[in-house]
Amino acid sequence: MRTTVGIIGAGPAGLLLARLLHNAGIDSVVLESRDRAYVEQRQRAGILEQGTVDVLRSAGAGERMDREGLRHDGIELRYDRRRHRIDFPGLTGGRSVTVYAQTEVVKDLVALQLREGGPLLFETEALAVEGADTDRPRVRFTRRGGRDGEAGRESVLECQYVVGCDGFWGVSRAAVPAAVSRVFERTYPFGWLGILADVPPSHDELVYARSERGFALLSMRSPAVSRLYLQVPAGTDAAAWSDGAVWDELERRLETAPDDDWVLNRGPVTAKSVTPMRSYVHEPMRYGRLFLAGDAAHIVPPTGAKGLNLAVGDVVTFARAFVHFRETGDPALLDAYSGTCLRRVWQAERFSYAMTTMLHRSPDATPFDDRIQRARLDRIATSRAAEQDLAECYTGFSFD
Amino acid sequence: MRTTVGIIGAGPAGLLLARLLHNAGIDSVVLESRDRAYVEQRQRAGILEQGTVDVLRSAGAGERMDREGLRHDGIELRYDRRRHRIDFPGLTGGRSVTVYAQTEVVKDLVALQLREGGPLLFETEALAVEGADTDRPRVRFTRRGGRDGEAGRESVLECQYVVGCDGFWGVSRAAVPAAVSRVFERTYPFGWLGILADVPPSHDELVYARSERGFALLSMRSPAVSRLYLQVPAGTDAAAWSDGAVWDELERRLETAPDDDWVLNRGPVTAKSVTPMRSYVHEPMRYGRLFLAGDAAHIVPPTGAKGLNLAVGDVVTFARAFVHFRETGDPALLDAYSGTCLRRVWQAERFSYAMTTMLHRSPDATPFDDRIQRARLDRIATSRAAEQDLAECYTGFSFD
Repeated sequence: MRTTVGIIGAGPAGLLLARLLHNAGIDSVVLESRDRAYVEQRQRAGILEQGTVDVLRSAGAGERMDREGLRHDGIELRYDRRRHRIDFPGLTGGRSVTVYAQTEVVKDLVALQLREGGPLLFETEALAVEGADTDRPRVRFTRRGGRDGEAGRESVLECQYVVGCDGFWGVSRAAVPAAVSRVFERTYPFGWLGILADVPPSHDELVYARSERGFALLSMRSPAVSRLYLQVPAGTDAAAWSDGAVWDELERRLETAPDDDWVLNRGPVTAKSVTPMRSYVHEPMRYGRLFLAGDAAHIVPPTGAKGLNLAVGDVVTFARAFVHFRETGDPALLDAYSGTCLRRVWQAERFSYAMTTMLHRSPDATPFDDRIQRARLDRIATSRAAEQDLAECYTGFSFD
Repeated sequence: MRTTVGIIGAGPAGLLLARLLHNAGIDSVVLESRDRAYVEQRQRAGILEQGTVDVLRSAGAGERMDREGLRHDGIELRYDRRRHRIDFPGLTGGRSVTVYAQTEVVKDLVALQLREGGPLLFETEALAVEGADTDRPRVRFTRRGGRDGEAGRESVLECQYVVGCDGFWGVSRAAVPAAVSRVFERTYPFGWLGILADVPPSHDELVYARSERGFALLSMRSPAVSRLYLQVPAGTDAAAWSDGAVWDELERRLETAPDDDWVLNRGPVTAKSVTPMRSYVHEPMRYGRLFLAGDAAHIVPPTGAKGLNLAVGDVVTFARAFVHFRETGDPALLDAYSGTCLRRVWQAERFSYAMTTMLHRSPDATPFDDRIQRARLDRIATSRAAEQDLAECYTGFSFD
């Protein structure tokens, strides 16, 4: 099999890239190890930056998002029983974010791709990227679920370029030789216990709560479905938490002032899982004709809502650079890919790290650390400049 | 001996407080364990916030400061050989800072106090504050250098109120019972090796430099005297550094781009010493009729230039509250003293901690930490909001 751009992974990065290339008349093949049903239901992020919304819309993948996505003009910070709202448009000259689950983005992009894009092969597992430093890179793969007797047989996808969108556990990154790789990493001694619940969200915007008991986040998937998170120790088993215990703990951490009539709505819990927290960056994001995008190159803790948006930024940068190269023969933008993405990635890493350390309770936190956390929140609540800094970062870093 | 307000310590806090009370017609006695020469020559901070300048001027202690102080409208951040200037007035609506050494402030206040203030007793060591929770607090003290045969004899200063301005190592804080005290502390694994040099400063504003080799600060005392600092490991002996080695290291850490013609001027080093770095806060700042001010209650690492200014904020808050109490009988402001000061103190602690961790190289820093530091500097260099946040904090928190 041959193609111009081999794309490994049918998450939002790989699917959007296929779409952007298709729109520019460039052919690609997408290899995805899981089946369609799995890809379309895995729960991930849900906050789209303004730039991400704009890209999806202009790529022709924004129809349902525009209909069903919820525009959010702010978030609430909650601490010491106080509530402080960050007004995004007022602080950023009109920017906002959109709540629209990653699974929905994926469904929209899969449907588009199957209707009018190039090959999108599910249950097709990439085994290795070879020859990344040659002008004929190849992806070795095997089909697992083929109905046509080819299951288990190894094949090769010959490409002009390969983009690894196969996430943190994918094979793409391994094709960059250790001698040129640099890894930057931080793990956190806590994770997020997340639930989905069939109950209207208890607040119309996201609530980021810092409490003595740990962090909590009130979020939503739709006007009828709540998404809520609790900071838990790393390694926590989600099954160890009963639904009632989760709601009780959320109520404690989201506590407001006695004269505040805010209440937490409870409802049936339909999913419960624990996400570990990690900061990770692989440099460079390009090796020869292999380009890494999204989680394949970098992970952020979810506190800044940046993971999906960074992936979108990467593939937008690649698509723009590749189209420029095809049209002009000038490889300057392609050559700048890693540097261009990494500037944005490190800003997102910095912001996600800052939000995480401001809001979570670390098991080894000293009383001094505790006071500094509160002083950071107080600063944001009392300085328009600090608030504006947060609002700019939350609504997104430029894709240019 | 009797007085209305007993003041322990003739640093800038104690001296300014005596002056503010004198101007309001309230008598005080200042006890200082060192002799005048020592007090007038010890090297400390040199950056006066706008609010500090305003207070000194309105207290009648600003004449020489206005003549000799250097108004600074910005600082420079230097990293990765790049230079980024922070424009204070442009970012804060006109605020600036003034370079005028703490020793000069002390000289001016001592001269004023001896000319027209109440008793200022040098070589008079406070031994303990007693009865802080009664309405007749007392300071036990002993005179060391008395010419009149009273040396070594113990005496008592009977007060209506006592203000402890006797620094981190003073006796005042010990009068707050352990049961009501809370201490918040962080030590750093590095300190500052500081030199004074008889050479014009190599830049007309302060330069804060982050380098792979550690932090460096280019500062000044006057147009003819440079003050420079190097981050060194905690416990470093200043004598272990030759003058030449200090200059060489400064040159490396202050490095600019190859096409930049900036040079470091060298000159005779007249003083060399190592300052440890510590963050420390004692809560509450008031116990009964004892009030803690300045370093007696809190220490900041010097990176944010906040120590002296916080001390000024404390005594301004006390003087205002005390005058209000005397005029109206209403103790509300006095009762609010600790809370009012601590809000400002924790903002200064947060800012000093942020500046310190952004610019210093920690011995246990990971490559991830290193990239985050650079991303923080990049953020400031590319976002007006982030820059404004820094400028507001640097030029000072409100004394109200």
